[in-house]
Amino acid sequence: MADIGKFKALYADKISKLDGNRSSPRFGDLVGIPESVKVKEHLVPLAGGQPFETLFPFKEIEVEYSDTPGQLGCEYSKEITKKTYRIPLYRTQEEESDIAHAFQYQFSRGSDEVLKKTRMIIEALNKPGYEGWDTVLTSGSSDSMNKIFSLLVDEDTTVLLEEFTYPNVFHNCYYHGGLITKIKMNVTANRDEQGINIEYLRDLLDNFETYFPERKKKVVLYTISTGHNPTALTESYEKRKIIYNICKEHGVFIIEDDPYGYLQLPTYNKENPLDNPYEDRITIDDFKTKLLIPSYVTIDDCGIVLRMETFSKVASPGFRLGFIVANKFFTTRLANINNMTNRNPSGPSQAVLNNLLNELSINYKETNPDALFIDGWINWCMKVAGEYTHRRNVLFQYLYATEAFKRDYFELLEPSCGMFATIIIKLLPLHVEVKGAHDKQERINKIKRAMDYCLCCVLEAGSVPVLGYKMTVSKEFSMERANFFRITFAKASSNEEFKRGAKGLSDGILKFFEEYGTDKERWNLLSTGLVGM
Amino acid sequence: MADIGKFKALYADKISKLDGNRSSPRFGDLVGIPESVKVKEHLVPLAGGQPFETLFPFKEIEVEYSDTPGQLGCEYSKEITKKTYRIPLYRTQEEESDIAHAFQYQFSRGSDEVLKKTRMIIEALNKPGYEGWDTVLTSGSSDSMNKIFSLLVDEDTTVLLEEFTYPNVFHNCYYHGGLITKIKMNVTANRDEQGINIEYLRDLLDNFETYFPERKKKVVLYTISTGHNPTALTESYEKRKIIYNICKEHGVFIIEDDPYGYLQLPTYNKENPLDNPYEDRITIDDFKTKLLIPSYVTIDDCGIVLRMETFSKVASPGFRLGFIVANKFFTTRLANINNMTNRNPSGPSQAVLNNLLNELSINYKETNPDALFIDGWINWCMKVAGEYTHRRNVLFQYLYATEAFKRDYFELLEPSCGMFATIIIKLLPLHVEVKGAHDKQERINKIKRAMDYCLCCVLEAGSVPVLGYKMTVSKEFSMERANFFRITFAKASSNEEFKRGAKGLSDGILKFFEEYGTDKERWNLLSTGLVGM
Repeated sequence: MADIGKFKALYADKISKLDGNRSSPRFGDLVGIPESVKVKEHLVPLAGGQPFETLFPFKEIEVEYSDTPGQLGCEYSKEITKKTYRIPLYRTQEEESDIAHAFQYQFSRGSDEVLKKTRMIIEALNKPGYEGWDTVLTSGSSDSMNKIFSLLVDEDTTVLLEEFTYPNVFHNCYYHGGLITKIKMNVTANRDEQGINIEYLRDLLDNFETYFPERKKKVVLYTISTGHNPTALTESYEKRKIIYNICKEHGVFIIEDDPYGYLQLPTYNKENPLDNPYEDRITIDDFKTKLLIPSYVTIDDCGIVLRMETFSKVASPGFRLGFIVANKFFTTRLANINNMTNRNPSGPSQAVLNNLLNELSINYKETNPDALFIDGWINWCMKVAGEYTHRRNVLFQYLYATEAFKRDYFELLEPSCGMFATIIIKLLPLHVEVKGAHDKQERINKIKRAMDYCLCCVLEAGSVPVLGYKMTVSKEFSMERANFFRITFAKASSNEEFKRGAKGLSDGILKFFEEYGTDKERWNLLSTGLVGM
Repeated sequence: MADIGKFKALYADKISKLDGNRSSPRFGDLVGIPESVKVKEHLVPLAGGQPFETLFPFKEIEVEYSDTPGQLGCEYSKEITKKTYRIPLYRTQEEESDIAHAFQYQFSRGSDEVLKKTRMIIEALNKPGYEGWDTVLTSGSSDSMNKIFSLLVDEDTTVLLEEFTYPNVFHNCYYHGGLITKIKMNVTANRDEQGINIEYLRDLLDNFETYFPERKKKVVLYTISTGHNPTALTESYEKRKIIYNICKEHGVFIIEDDPYGYLQLPTYNKENPLDNPYEDRITIDDFKTKLLIPSYVTIDDCGIVLRMETFSKVASPGFRLGFIVANKFFTTRLANINNMTNRNPSGPSQAVLNNLLNELSINYKETNPDALFIDGWINWCMKVAGEYTHRRNVLFQYLYATEAFKRDYFELLEPSCGMFATIIIKLLPLHVEVKGAHDKQERINKIKRAMDYCLCCVLEAGSVPVLGYKMTVSKEFSMERANFFRITFAKASSNEEFKRGAKGLSDGILKFFEEYGTDKERWNLLSTGLVGM
């Protein structure tokens, strides 16, 4: 409670008008009973409408799992990896999820056992730099984002977004009334430079009153700083410290969305493309201390960072299960928003995940007795990251061998994290030439039209990437840097499919370079509106 | 699409300002590709960031279940009822949920197989009276309520609430800006009369401009018309038709929240308290046609009713799984709200439920070949209702045998549906006498103070009910009818516990009548604020 009060004193006047007024007292709570009333212990529960657990049809759940993710192109083989764990009707050991609780109503912040695991994950990997933080469960990162915006954003709030970002973010932000303002990014292979353009951010905040004389200086920054979507870039720790300090100086809350952070990808080895350091050289300590780039929360010394994590990418998206790390005033407010809207995340999702975490931890500690409880889970994350590294290697090997690459028609930005990569199409002057030198809109239209044409060629050749410009906050602002496709190595099912995917990209790009801007053009594409947005 | 357009034309200008502007185009959609582009079949998926399903740790889930709910006081016995079904990695039969889909990203409206089942339930039990309806999944009824208010309620909207209701409803409504207006209820044992006071409703709507000259006439009615919370009353079909026509005449949307509807309770038999007609006399056709009171959607001929159902009470609250029935324009808007906020309900929840529904249906049809597919599920609902009937019988038997009842200190309103009952405390003039005859506030304070005192006595005697006045929209308006406790027969674990629960209530009430308003009063209770609200 002391922590809540401390942060409430600091930040109560920074939250949205909506949330500042929002309360949902639990009507079933007994409050204010005089002390002299001798309330009996073990009251017969005639109040809350919870069905008794034997009325649930479910008696026990057994989950067959593998502690090794399936390899590319290999069917899952029962013989090799079959292990099981249970969700019993009543728990048989501490920290176990059972049907009686998981299938019942829960507290809105989530079940104690899963909350405890999320705190362990944060303690082990990204311990905040201040006392008084906590976690709160949500129904995945979309839910987290919606609730954080509901907590912090109203029509007085400027929301800084990276110029390229996940479109649901700006759609959602818009409906909370936020004043969306884009931040220039460095879309570059240089790992010291990539991510938010610091000079742009600093200038914008230093001169906020000049740029936005009509606005209050009430600002939040939403950032995907690790394995960014769509560019797949990752900000260096040095840059994070600088950005944090700029934000702190200007009273800016940092919303750090990190769905991909555990999918660390070691540097691609062009000499030996299928080399995968996860197979033999990366220890759990390497992973924790060398690969993972520390979160903004580790730098935070005053509770201005809200970090969003999810179990979607390393366990299963269908869980709809994620969590937020923040100061306790914010986590309490967020739990209250849970209570007023969709309540706690699914109990079955929590139970299936929680007992898996127990299982992985217990198994891991058998051969590593000194390990932390949560290391079994981190070990699983590393295995998944190893699989993504292999998938990345396979796709990149094919891409670098393509004719289009050899002809220098595209550049591949290699990601250090996540499931995406960026293919920059090296548009020629003839593709985008503009008659009037200062006709900016005409140049934007030309770049869009060229990329649309290129996409059509790729679709004919059999692959489907995402157009970079479809993930811009403002086409006007970003089109000059939006001549790229986002591609993923998450979804293909086999070596063969990746080979065809790379060939489809290459063939399409070759066709584009052969036809576009010449009399061979086959489609009379409009300069706007082709693929919607 | 034609249906969407039809209802859009009718109701697009009736939705909230927020939702009227809300859109979230799926950025991955390919739209506007010229027809002459020969998009290849079987594109290699390099676009969407879905993890490949073999990367999920889960390979198969086996659920042990019972097709008979556990009986009061009986431990679940494995020997008798053990049955199992599976959630395989890849489906082996039509309409089966599998891990590859359930644990993956899904469409925001929910999985096709569960949506299909919800449509079957509605077709079989409450078929809407018009063409062009549909269902959309949500993460339970709290989620449904929040989203329906987001769709329909803004600061111009008057929200009519029953004067007694679930407090989260008015808290949530308030934060959508709604102008909350209470409707008087008939809290009576007369089943033709109970529920919304029709004259009050009609007068309010007929004279809306007089009562609320400053408001627009943009009105929605939120109602729990079956097994109402907290009073447990149910509105007759005749009353529903009248209320529907009043609402239709005045352009009022009806939000029908029906979490308890399948828990039909046959009349309590005082001569033979443990008589349970579900054991031998109620057929599935009786249940469908005689017990269930048809929903407002069955009366609806123009798509103004939004019906909320949930799997919380008849399957498991922890699922966080419910659905909304409405016209297709509304269900499309609601799916869009899903997409922008917490997306689809948990995949594991959907899979565990869906395959249970299949299992129950297939088993049921073995002995009833002419049954509808969904009848297996309805049969399960009847069994749960039978268990609630038994629990109701046990509790009522004890309550009617208590000393406090014999002394006529309370009246028990018998519910025909749900998990709650109402205990009206027959306050005496000496409990609530007011010096100034017209001092209304003083009388309100007196009733509150008396009920608070009575609660303290009951807590000392070992039971915990809910104070009726804590579930009022306005204490000022309703206190005259709020001299009751809500009790439930859902949560106790045994016959013995119900016996103690009834004794606790009775002993507490006896003590109240012995002490209150006399010089034996032990607590100097304030007239306001005692148990919060």
